[in-house]
Amino acid sequence: MNPMNDVVRDGRLLRGARSRRTIVRRAVDVASLAGLDGLSFGGLATDLGVSKAGIQTLFGAKEQLQVAVAEAARKAFEEAVVRPASAQPAGIARLRALVERWIAYAAEPLFPGGCFWAANLPVFDSRPGPVRDALAGQQQAWRDLIADQLRRASDAGEVGVPDADLAAFQIAAILTATNTALRLGDDGAADTARRAVDGILRA
Amino acid sequence: MNPMNDVVRDGRLLRGARSRRTIVRRAVDVASLAGLDGLSFGGLATDLGVSKAGIQTLFGAKEQLQVAVAEAARKAFEEAVVRPASAQPAGIARLRALVERWIAYAAEPLFPGGCFWAANLPVFDSRPGPVRDALAGQQQAWRDLIADQLRRASDAGEVGVPDADLAAFQIAAILTATNTALRLGDDGAADTARRAVDGILRA
Repeated sequence: MNPMNDVVRDGRLLRGARSRRTIVRRAVDVASLAGLDGLSFGGLATDLGVSKAGIQTLFGAKEQLQVAVAEAARKAFEEAVVRPASAQPAGIARLRALVERWIAYAAEPLFPGGCFWAANLPVFDSRPGPVRDALAGQQQAWRDLIADQLRRASDAGEVGVPDADLAAFQIAAILTATNTALRLGDDGAADTARRAVDGILRA
Repeated sequence: MNPMNDVVRDGRLLRGARSRRTIVRRAVDVASLAGLDGLSFGGLATDLGVSKAGIQTLFGAKEQLQVAVAEAARKAFEEAVVRPASAQPAGIARLRALVERWIAYAAEPLFPGGCFWAANLPVFDSRPGPVRDALAGQQQAWRDLIADQLRRASDAGEVGVPDADLAAFQIAAILTATNTALRLGDDGAADTARRAVDGILRA
């Protein structure tokens, strides 16, 4: 055993992990605009000034890159939307914070092409496989989070929503449609979203 | 003037129009699955056993083909959803028929990839140009149709919807989300859509 071998190996692993992060970060932006189908090892290599073979070695097949990109998008979404909202008390306050953070996430936007799932789920929803499973699971987790806050709000008597899952489906649908409206330049889209969500919470 | 020249020319125009229709019909199916970006003159030529140059002569640039495909999808949608529903009296009856026809259009589905606009608008919404304009205009016409029936229903005292445009935005958003749920294999999606729309009409 030569301890220097470990140092060399650790250095390589570290550089590999850093390269992987850099590539995935760039790939998330590309995928939010051109879709996960728009990703290519060659295109990323040109963008980042690295070798195509190096990227292929790190990710293997394109599908693995796409799954890694979906996971990175989920983490960025959690940092931008879910974590800040969790500073609010559970129930209606956290739900409203989630909606406001989501509108900011789509309007600023966090990714250049707007909502990552709005751009990619409609393309992959007809294609069984790990990319579709990842995207669908992430969308379901978002709806479950909304439904959970609605149930807590209902339990606390803050709102009278008879079916939390149905209301969560509606709120998520409204936000996805708001993302499209924002991309199309509809200046009133954020206000429309707030009024639509208010309507559901009052129902 | 040789009348035979007109006959020859008319024959060519007729064959050209038929070829155009055949190509566009095939392209609508491809675009509902792979998206309008997934269309290529070469791919369509192979699928249909015709020459790539012939397709290029008929359509010119890919963008013109994409606009022609969007227009063909709109016509097919009108035949499948809008026209049958217009047999019902204006107001709540026609609105419910539009919703039921839309669910059938997405569930059967009319296009192999499900709703044409759900698949393509999220990809083109960040790209200014004639394809985006066509898709956005078609979506707006659908919302306007729903809003118009809601206003007629409200005027007739059939429902109490204070803001028809807002309710139309919500109904269209629910239907788009339902299309994704159907593609993902959610058997309860059609029932969820009906309950969500009922909730809006009761509000």
